[in-house]
Amino acid sequence: MSIFRTARGMRDFPPEEARLLRYVEDKARRIARLYGYGEIITPAVESYELLAAKAGEEVRSRMYAFKDLGGRKVALRPEFTASVARLVVTTLRNEPKPLRLFCVGSLYRYDEPQQGRFREFWQSNYELMGSSKPEADAEIIMVTNSLMKAAGLKNCIFKVGHVGVLRGILRQENVEEKTRNEIMQLMDKKRYNDSLELVEEAGVSKKCLATFQKLVSVGGGKVSEILKIMERHVEDCESAVDAVRNLHEILKLVSESGEKINMVVEAGFARGLEYYTGMIFEVYVPEIDMALGGGGRYDKLIELFGGESTPAVGVAHGIDRIMLAMQKQKARLRTEEKKRVMVIPIKEALKGEALKISRMLRDDGVPVEVEVMGRKVTKALEDADRRKIDYAVIVGERELKEGAVVIRNLKRREQKTVEIERIREAIKSWE
Amino acid sequence: MSIFRTARGMRDFPPEEARLLRYVEDKARRIARLYGYGEIITPAVESYELLAAKAGEEVRSRMYAFKDLGGRKVALRPEFTASVARLVVTTLRNEPKPLRLFCVGSLYRYDEPQQGRFREFWQSNYELMGSSKPEADAEIIMVTNSLMKAAGLKNCIFKVGHVGVLRGILRQENVEEKTRNEIMQLMDKKRYNDSLELVEEAGVSKKCLATFQKLVSVGGGKVSEILKIMERHVEDCESAVDAVRNLHEILKLVSESGEKINMVVEAGFARGLEYYTGMIFEVYVPEIDMALGGGGRYDKLIELFGGESTPAVGVAHGIDRIMLAMQKQKARLRTEEKKRVMVIPIKEALKGEALKISRMLRDDGVPVEVEVMGRKVTKALEDADRRKIDYAVIVGERELKEGAVVIRNLKRREQKTVEIERIREAIKSWE
Repeated sequence: MSIFRTARGMRDFPPEEARLLRYVEDKARRIARLYGYGEIITPAVESYELLAAKAGEEVRSRMYAFKDLGGRKVALRPEFTASVARLVVTTLRNEPKPLRLFCVGSLYRYDEPQQGRFREFWQSNYELMGSSKPEADAEIIMVTNSLMKAAGLKNCIFKVGHVGVLRGILRQENVEEKTRNEIMQLMDKKRYNDSLELVEEAGVSKKCLATFQKLVSVGGGKVSEILKIMERHVEDCESAVDAVRNLHEILKLVSESGEKINMVVEAGFARGLEYYTGMIFEVYVPEIDMALGGGGRYDKLIELFGGESTPAVGVAHGIDRIMLAMQKQKARLRTEEKKRVMVIPIKEALKGEALKISRMLRDDGVPVEVEVMGRKVTKALEDADRRKIDYAVIVGERELKEGAVVIRNLKRREQKTVEIERIREAIKSWE
Repeated sequence: MSIFRTARGMRDFPPEEARLLRYVEDKARRIARLYGYGEIITPAVESYELLAAKAGEEVRSRMYAFKDLGGRKVALRPEFTASVARLVVTTLRNEPKPLRLFCVGSLYRYDEPQQGRFREFWQSNYELMGSSKPEADAEIIMVTNSLMKAAGLKNCIFKVGHVGVLRGILRQENVEEKTRNEIMQLMDKKRYNDSLELVEEAGVSKKCLATFQKLVSVGGGKVSEILKIMERHVEDCESAVDAVRNLHEILKLVSESGEKINMVVEAGFARGLEYYTGMIFEVYVPEIDMALGGGGRYDKLIELFGGESTPAVGVAHGIDRIMLAMQKQKARLRTEEKKRVMVIPIKEALKGEALKISRMLRDDGVPVEVEVMGRKVTKALEDADRRKIDYAVIVGERELKEGAVVIRNLKRREQKTVEIERIREAIKSWE
């Protein structure tokens, strides 16, 4: 393994890319603040036991697990959920509910690298703990849409479903939990035929199988109509009917909020993780074949981690994928781009003055690069041009005697002599 | 190992602490922008070979190293330097010099945990590549002081030295490199007697030993006088004299910049890492016994990593320690604290309206938590009080008919009825 390469699947962000990542991270944090989610930071290294406890087999087998120097088995977190749950059942145990938590950072999975999928990847994560109400589910969907809008993404599609529909039917038919989970996992992978086969093997009634078959193909039209069709299909199963109605209520609240979201309901939609108990959703853009984010309700999770029974709903967003989507959609970053200045002393003896002027400008919030290569002014100006610097401040002896410098507009190729205190004004007058 | 605990030496940041960490990170990024340092992000997992290549034995032995599922030896980065160097000799190879790079993130060392020292710790890191000039060294010191000021820290002390002084003398006396490094490491640990013993054992001249002895005790007074004393002590060793003069020039430039820095020069000052070649420095506050940051010049590093000879100077700051210092000094965070609002529907049927009003306020940049627990208004208001929410917007049927809501100032315990479009105005009128 060459020292000149990143480890396989790992990724560098040179300045342009790093800027984009921090931009999305910043937007995610802003959304958290707007919705009242407190940020927490948990370590990337956790006990293996914690991370493996509730992760599905697929995630567990792809974890970066190892023994530390003290012989303890640890791993790099493959998702935030376990760490957040740990904090909720310990340090934050007595916090009043609802508890809204946000985190953002890098996660690690030993997956086969491909476009938009890295072994170190970045996520933002929002969890709303303590409420079983549909408005909590609605809020998590709204949070996600707010982030997509803040990232400047267009044509987002929300795929929405409810695990209670299929699970309700399977439970009513006394299919055991392990098989139920297997069926849902096949559904998640869109292996519908295999999944139906397994349903049949589980010895369900003919009617149930028929319902399952019908549900798998339901989805994609007008939301309220799809929901009606779903409800009709499952009318014999009370808990499935409840699930459809719960989903209906959630989507109605989202719609009433006035948040404009393009929704598609799919009756056969499932998500990989076993711990979902209610509404589930994923968000897509047409340009990319992977979900940019996904989440749902998981009312049993905190209990599974040894805490008090706590209804919860949450979502995770793939920042790498959001970045990819922004690049494909050529989303414009809305940042205040400050004009950049280069300060150049015309001779060695004026370096201290150049540093002083740089410091004064920075104290006023102006980004300044100071010439540190000992180059002649012409060379330094060429360099400033190449770096797309906006203004050069040239510090010369003659002007300095009058308390002045030469300031040059590098785009317009104009220059003038101004007093040091007036540099900012001079820059402004050009804008 | 309980799943309820962080792995040993790892640390959670609950909301208050996370806020402080992100505050410092944000200031560090702002300083980077002001000085023209482009941010890069490198992976936390790198090839072991890269990370071990130039790390000192002490760091190497405390690395989190392990084999990944493909059998490759990797490790968690114990510092940023190797990763930055990798990027500089590969992706950024053809970037014009000077190259200013910034990074910030978490690092991993298997050290014994103690106050202000964790196994996952956070650093900000600035590297200025391509310039051998003293103004580059001066800039790195100024960057550090700017960060300390931005964090609101007072009474910072910069300890400054130059490895060329002692190393120059040892080289002139033909002490071999390995022994030179050992001597410097003992100096770094302030084991001056052991270090002097080793100098003696190395078979140096009596005069050299005497010089060494004198230098170790020089430091702490007025900078220009200390530098004069140092120069006098080393007058027989040309490269040591050059080192003192170089240090003098750097400090003169810092002083001319007008950046007010409390400096202490120590002739016997050394830093652990072997790759320093020139000026070195550390920054302290009186409340904490550890450096908050440190750096210096390392002109050979990029070459050691297989790149072109590239003079360089850089600094790393311990964010955990800066946070600790801020807490000890009770530094005030200068953030714009926005007023927080809770929106409460008085009955189930008005939940959609509550979500809508929340959305509108957030669109205007107001942080809003919406009631999602289905509680009665009085209960929800109690909760809002406990959370130190500023205003409650109560959505009731009667007011809604007039397009209005009740808005309550929770601090003043006043309330009034206002039109929905005027909520922000009403909030402002109370401020």
